[in-house]
Amino acid sequence: MSVTTFEKPGAKVRLDDISEKPPKKLTEEEARKEFDKLGEELFDLQDLLWGARQHSVLVILQGRDSAGKDGAVKHVAGFLNPRGVHVTSFGAPTPEELEHDFLWRIHRHAPRKGEFGIFNRSHYEDVLVVRVHDLVPKSLWKERYDHIRDFEELLAEHGTIILKFFLHISHDEQKKRLLKREEDARKSWKLNAGDWEDREHWDDYTEAYEEAISRTASKHAPWIIVPSDTKWYRNLVVARSIAEALRPHRRDWQKHLDAVGEAKKAELASYRKKKK
Amino acid sequence: MSVTTFEKPGAKVRLDDISEKPPKKLTEEEARKEFDKLGEELFDLQDLLWGARQHSVLVILQGRDSAGKDGAVKHVAGFLNPRGVHVTSFGAPTPEELEHDFLWRIHRHAPRKGEFGIFNRSHYEDVLVVRVHDLVPKSLWKERYDHIRDFEELLAEHGTIILKFFLHISHDEQKKRLLKREEDARKSWKLNAGDWEDREHWDDYTEAYEEAISRTASKHAPWIIVPSDTKWYRNLVVARSIAEALRPHRRDWQKHLDAVGEAKKAELASYRKKKK
Repeated sequence: MSVTTFEKPGAKVRLDDISEKPPKKLTEEEARKEFDKLGEELFDLQDLLWGARQHSVLVILQGRDSAGKDGAVKHVAGFLNPRGVHVTSFGAPTPEELEHDFLWRIHRHAPRKGEFGIFNRSHYEDVLVVRVHDLVPKSLWKERYDHIRDFEELLAEHGTIILKFFLHISHDEQKKRLLKREEDARKSWKLNAGDWEDREHWDDYTEAYEEAISRTASKHAPWIIVPSDTKWYRNLVVARSIAEALRPHRRDWQKHLDAVGEAKKAELASYRKKKK
Repeated sequence: MSVTTFEKPGAKVRLDDISEKPPKKLTEEEARKEFDKLGEELFDLQDLLWGARQHSVLVILQGRDSAGKDGAVKHVAGFLNPRGVHVTSFGAPTPEELEHDFLWRIHRHAPRKGEFGIFNRSHYEDVLVVRVHDLVPKSLWKERYDHIRDFEELLAEHGTIILKFFLHISHDEQKKRLLKREEDARKSWKLNAGDWEDREHWDDYTEAYEEAISRTASKHAPWIIVPSDTKWYRNLVVARSIAEALRPHRRDWQKHLDAVGEAKKAELASYRKKKK
């Protein structure tokens, strides 16, 4: 499977050239089978991550309204041990948050060693919605790409494995999903006129996303473009990308834990000896 | 099913008189079936809780080492949408935390409206391990029961549905579990000599738990004694108790959300009209 990934700053990003659909050869059944297998692997990797306390994982989910950020959280985080996962949904900033720089509220939720942090929206909103709707002057938001790069570098240097997902849906699919939300009478509280309003700025968002992705792509904080018109494929790509990023650490984590284990066994033996 | 629940302060609590085993009539198969059904109900109730933003839920898990606090978190929180669940594991306090009163670090993690907060250990450690191991003088910890009662009342008045679970395991079962942990060579990093040391204080802990439960039991923050020698029964009791506490709110939440839904639909209609 080849999923479009950007890991070089300044990369040329053309979202319209990237498919929102799963590869034709892949069946839903195959995808679900792989997804479940990845789930077991992720649970296992998370246990090692948690014990070894050498890295943390930061998953950033971005995408247009109805692209499936909530769904990806639910399905992918659903595999993990809730003990070690913190999901943070960033909405419109509070008055207190607005009194600070745009990274202040984000930084507080950076995952600690051993933990998974999952961001549903993030500091990227400050170069997306903020840019499209002119919420702050251009002179301010254009400086933010560099700040974001520096910030993510800081986290990465502290052992944070960062993965940034753009959930890529087509214009048609979004319309279908927004209309579908209106059908379920019991769920009309989930409606949002703002989603339709934002849809009119489709191209502005495309442009804002392309610049954000291009300017903040890096080896230690890559952007992964997730074809998201089909939910089962979206979930698969997210799960697989996380597993691929964690897998190379497995041996080191286990080795570290084996050493901890030896020490714990010695401690226990000495405790028992003392008791006799 | 009758599960021992304490909801009156000053209740007489005798843990030794309460069974750690599932009722004889219940089969594992029946329990698992009910558990899965409860899971679907909980997911659904959580969605209403999240949308209605009128209550929050605080689940406190206490119990001796190996009683299954982690397991209960994993299985019960595993049903929920990770978006609205925050699990906090309270270990030994950090230096900063020790500079504050014992409720300071707890209060920060109180769930916000719409959210599930799950505490793996909690402020109760400050009248349990602290008491058993003489970590602070009696004059200090004996005041804490009243502070805990007041604190929980404050949360409840703000709409927090509080459930306190004591995972009740037998002396024999704990031994089995601690020994079992030693068998798995790859998991020896999970060993802890302190667990064996604490086991020698079994009766002191029993006494400390009985007093804590008795003095802090209340209608709005009941203690539920969970027979925990069998994992599938432990999980069932926790899930069922939460569902029972939330179920009475379902109708109100849905009613509230229906009203929100009407407003959202009107907003959407007016947006569309304006567009034409």
